[in-house]
Amino acid sequence: MPPEYLYGHWSVMEALRANRRQFEQLLLAEKADEKGSIGEIMHIANVRNVPIKRVPKHILDDLSGGNNHQSTILRTNSYRYAEIDEILAVAQKRNEKPFLLMLDLLKDPQNVGSLLRVADVVGVHGIIMQDRRAVAVTPAVVSASSGAVEHLLVAQVTNLVNTMKDLKKYDIWMVGFEIGEGLLPINKTNLNMGVGIVLGSEGEGMRRLVKETCDILLTLPMRGNVGSLNVSTVGAVALYNAWQAREWQGWKPL
Amino acid sequence: MPPEYLYGHWSVMEALRANRRQFEQLLLAEKADEKGSIGEIMHIANVRNVPIKRVPKHILDDLSGGNNHQSTILRTNSYRYAEIDEILAVAQKRNEKPFLLMLDLLKDPQNVGSLLRVADVVGVHGIIMQDRRAVAVTPAVVSASSGAVEHLLVAQVTNLVNTMKDLKKYDIWMVGFEIGEGLLPINKTNLNMGVGIVLGSEGEGMRRLVKETCDILLTLPMRGNVGSLNVSTVGAVALYNAWQAREWQGWKPL
Repeated sequence: MPPEYLYGHWSVMEALRANRRQFEQLLLAEKADEKGSIGEIMHIANVRNVPIKRVPKHILDDLSGGNNHQSTILRTNSYRYAEIDEILAVAQKRNEKPFLLMLDLLKDPQNVGSLLRVADVVGVHGIIMQDRRAVAVTPAVVSASSGAVEHLLVAQVTNLVNTMKDLKKYDIWMVGFEIGEGLLPINKTNLNMGVGIVLGSEGEGMRRLVKETCDILLTLPMRGNVGSLNVSTVGAVALYNAWQAREWQGWKPL
Repeated sequence: MPPEYLYGHWSVMEALRANRRQFEQLLLAEKADEKGSIGEIMHIANVRNVPIKRVPKHILDDLSGGNNHQSTILRTNSYRYAEIDEILAVAQKRNEKPFLLMLDLLKDPQNVGSLLRVADVVGVHGIIMQDRRAVAVTPAVVSASSGAVEHLLVAQVTNLVNTMKDLKKYDIWMVGFEIGEGLLPINKTNLNMGVGIVLGSEGEGMRRLVKETCDILLTLPMRGNVGSLNVSTVGAVALYNAWQAREWQGWKPL
């Protein structure tokens, strides 16, 4: 597998903190100041025995594909996907009803990253997505998730519908979010149960078979003039609603 | 005032639909196809008597500052801000308790645009922000809101704290969202009242005086490893929670 180049302070810091990848090298811009975030990153890189190399800025520009690398790139092996069993084991270990996020063919790294960040914050046990025709956990997704995905379990499956059917056997309800006629608004179902929140792709929504495999379809009410929402907004509201139904299980107020 | 250049299909379409600006010219890339979105935009531009001009693509690149213009730019006068009284009049006319969004020195056009899009979808009566040291309604904000801001009332005020104090006299509760000790989670207060949802800037949160002027401070619980959320995510969850407390007032299920 070719190496991956994680870029930006959050991505690099969280990858080093999570310590789940093999780190080959930390690349810093020649003139980058060692104070602040970069100083912290260098510290943890030393703890992890990662070689640090200073390189001209244009090399970082190239390796990050022109993205905002903030003078910091981490060369690693690729993201390790989880198995469904590992995800269910987390729920069991925490003694919580399974709380999953299922993504049907999402294409935009920004949306997926944003959803993963919220998934981390509400304590989702794992995220399941299809391996083909959907975004993978690329450095752009890591960046858009502010590094959160480095701590999360993400499973890639060949056929999302089959996985949904399998999960239903474990008493996990598949709850799809959809715009359409005769659907209940989000607060009319108590989501305090084993649940997989199912979101469809930007623009097209869930595929027909995915939708038909859901146990419940809910909608996010909308009024106003434009009347559409980004899938990452729908997902954030849905995930918070589900966590609220669990009475903020696992929350430690400061 | 210099002209503004709104770019992208959604911005241009919603500006034309809302019909609140003075439209000087619709600029289309020479080779842009007249089918689909651009065809619809040309149709409504004709209805509004807006001259249409074909120009080389590089001119659009320049006028949009390198942003994704989708072959479409609308030259208009600048955004018209509303007065607070106009905003309160909307609530009165709809016979609804005031539902406001107050933004304290937000800086990122993407976040502000995203919040405005959600504000439209939940039926907020108006948005209030400070005129200095904060983002204004620029073409980038219009774009990030998918054009929603063209339909919304946005007021700019000199001193947000004074405006909050004035609004409290109208029985509008100022509800701030904050991360901190001893705060109630969002669902422990019934937001079915005249309400201004107050959000602080990215990274720094609300200013001290703004926070002290709030009637209630609520928090969005967080667990997980990264433990931070984008202000646009916090705002989306807060706005949906407030609208849910109003029992989806004004929602017309499809």
